[in-house]
Amino acid sequence: MSEIDVLVSEVGPRDGLQMAGAVMPTAQKKRWITLAAEAGLREIEVCSFVPPKLVPAMADAQEVTRFACAIPGLSVAVLAPNLKGAESAIRAGAHKITVPISVSASHNRANVNRTPAESVAEIARICALRDSLPKDRRPVIEGGLSTVFGCTIEGVVPEADVLALCTALVEAGVDEVGLADTTGMANPAAIRRMFKAVRAEIGADKLAGAHLHNTLGLGLANALAALDVGVTTLDASLAGLGGCPFAPGASGNIVTEDLVYMLEEMGLRTGIDLEKLIAIRSVLEIGLPDEPLYGFVANIGVQKGGKPIERIAAV
Amino acid sequence: MSEIDVLVSEVGPRDGLQMAGAVMPTAQKKRWITLAAEAGLREIEVCSFVPPKLVPAMADAQEVTRFACAIPGLSVAVLAPNLKGAESAIRAGAHKITVPISVSASHNRANVNRTPAESVAEIARICALRDSLPKDRRPVIEGGLSTVFGCTIEGVVPEADVLALCTALVEAGVDEVGLADTTGMANPAAIRRMFKAVRAEIGADKLAGAHLHNTLGLGLANALAALDVGVTTLDASLAGLGGCPFAPGASGNIVTEDLVYMLEEMGLRTGIDLEKLIAIRSVLEIGLPDEPLYGFVANIGVQKGGKPIERIAAV
Repeated sequence: MSEIDVLVSEVGPRDGLQMAGAVMPTAQKKRWITLAAEAGLREIEVCSFVPPKLVPAMADAQEVTRFACAIPGLSVAVLAPNLKGAESAIRAGAHKITVPISVSASHNRANVNRTPAESVAEIARICALRDSLPKDRRPVIEGGLSTVFGCTIEGVVPEADVLALCTALVEAGVDEVGLADTTGMANPAAIRRMFKAVRAEIGADKLAGAHLHNTLGLGLANALAALDVGVTTLDASLAGLGGCPFAPGASGNIVTEDLVYMLEEMGLRTGIDLEKLIAIRSVLEIGLPDEPLYGFVANIGVQKGGKPIERIAAV
Repeated sequence: MSEIDVLVSEVGPRDGLQMAGAVMPTAQKKRWITLAAEAGLREIEVCSFVPPKLVPAMADAQEVTRFACAIPGLSVAVLAPNLKGAESAIRAGAHKITVPISVSASHNRANVNRTPAESVAEIARICALRDSLPKDRRPVIEGGLSTVFGCTIEGVVPEADVLALCTALVEAGVDEVGLADTTGMANPAAIRRMFKAVRAEIGADKLAGAHLHNTLGLGLANALAALDVGVTTLDASLAGLGGCPFAPGASGNIVTEDLVYMLEEMGLRTGIDLEKLIAIRSVLEIGLPDEPLYGFVANIGVQKGGKPIERIAAV
């Protein structure tokens, strides 16, 4: 496998499908994951181990995870909000389990119905479960810090709270901590400041990537800011799946196609074939026909040569 | 007037309206400019002095420029593709005249029907005209370099061509040179490289701002890259006016509202009231009812406090 400069982690099958209006059939999920791996994606967050009653879109988590784990060379990530979910994820063979925990108490309550301290305790139990496994079967446990850059309920999230929670998670035994701009409220200056501060707090080896949303259009600028301070793993979602239907152009996560385009144009290798990546959008069109598909690069087509200029004074 | 860190130059009345499908009535243009100045915009490119037969939307350039020049404290910029246009602009009292010149020969031919060398000669004549005026009535002449980061006809544009043209323009007598990503083909790495190279070539005092398009969604990331290498003037267009109707979300210029939001969130002062700025979109709705209005911040609304969280596991 050739070397890459940035690991683009596709989270659409989890974050995108979880937010979508309809349930994608399992067969289409498998096709998406297969094609994504073929396009060069090396890590895919394939599902969330949550109660099917709460999130019907994730009812096939076991099957999808097992399927993905059979693809050679693919790192299969999943999300699990609690010990029970983590147990299921481990049974399915997941390579990496992200456990969400919001820095702001109100958001953590709304999201996983716990205080942050209770979440830390649960994550410690998940880490103990990991440690009880044979070494070659232990998944990577990531503490997925939500609302790091602002909370839609509480507003500003103090940096001190973020750092304290990072330390608590490391003490609880997580392998890494990821920082998520869950609400799309980050800006490039905040991204640079926070990633530097967290790295200083827990060390570079414990700092996972950036999970950025594009709610307010700053997604790629924030990704650039993260790259500038040494972040080399960036989450993204095919077609920005999970966007807000009331806000045209406002995708959920940053759009994988646009991110890959930006990185490759900057000379940063992703290992991903952009043309093949864009072609996977057809799976979404079939599997989720009512969902809007975002992405500048896919919609515009990369302009190179041949396009006539129709402007008069196109400064 | 309070201090600012970044000058956001509104180019919508020129670049946006020039590309729009319909002609905005003069009264609405005046209202837009008035409200923009009230919102804190300090520089507005109000029109283009081009033949009305070619660009009917700019037939009222004289009237609009005179109107704008009567607004205290506002820097009134215009575009003029040739000496004749510059003469009209000077008669109207414009404070700054940008003369477009494409680095790629094919684009310059399509745009102003000249070779780049012929454009440089025309710009020298415009600078001579400027010098013939009393000192207190001389407009700033900017060479507006188009297709700096790629050409839709010729593809890659060599950096050496950009630097040679910058030098030629300075020798022709321009006050400043601006760099435009006319085709939206720039990326943050190219932006940083090129602005540094041009500054080294002609000096910081001759380097005007960045004129960025958002065709492929990299507009704000490119703006961030420009800021990082010391650029302090950024062009933008209200509602990203002038976008491509076939590509939802693909605005023309970067969206003024989104840019101002990003800058202010980063702690960079623009002097612009974001709420007042967003309110001006109603003028576009009245004056150009069929034109799509872009912008994440305006469409989403800035999320702060109160919004209920509906997700289950929102890492």
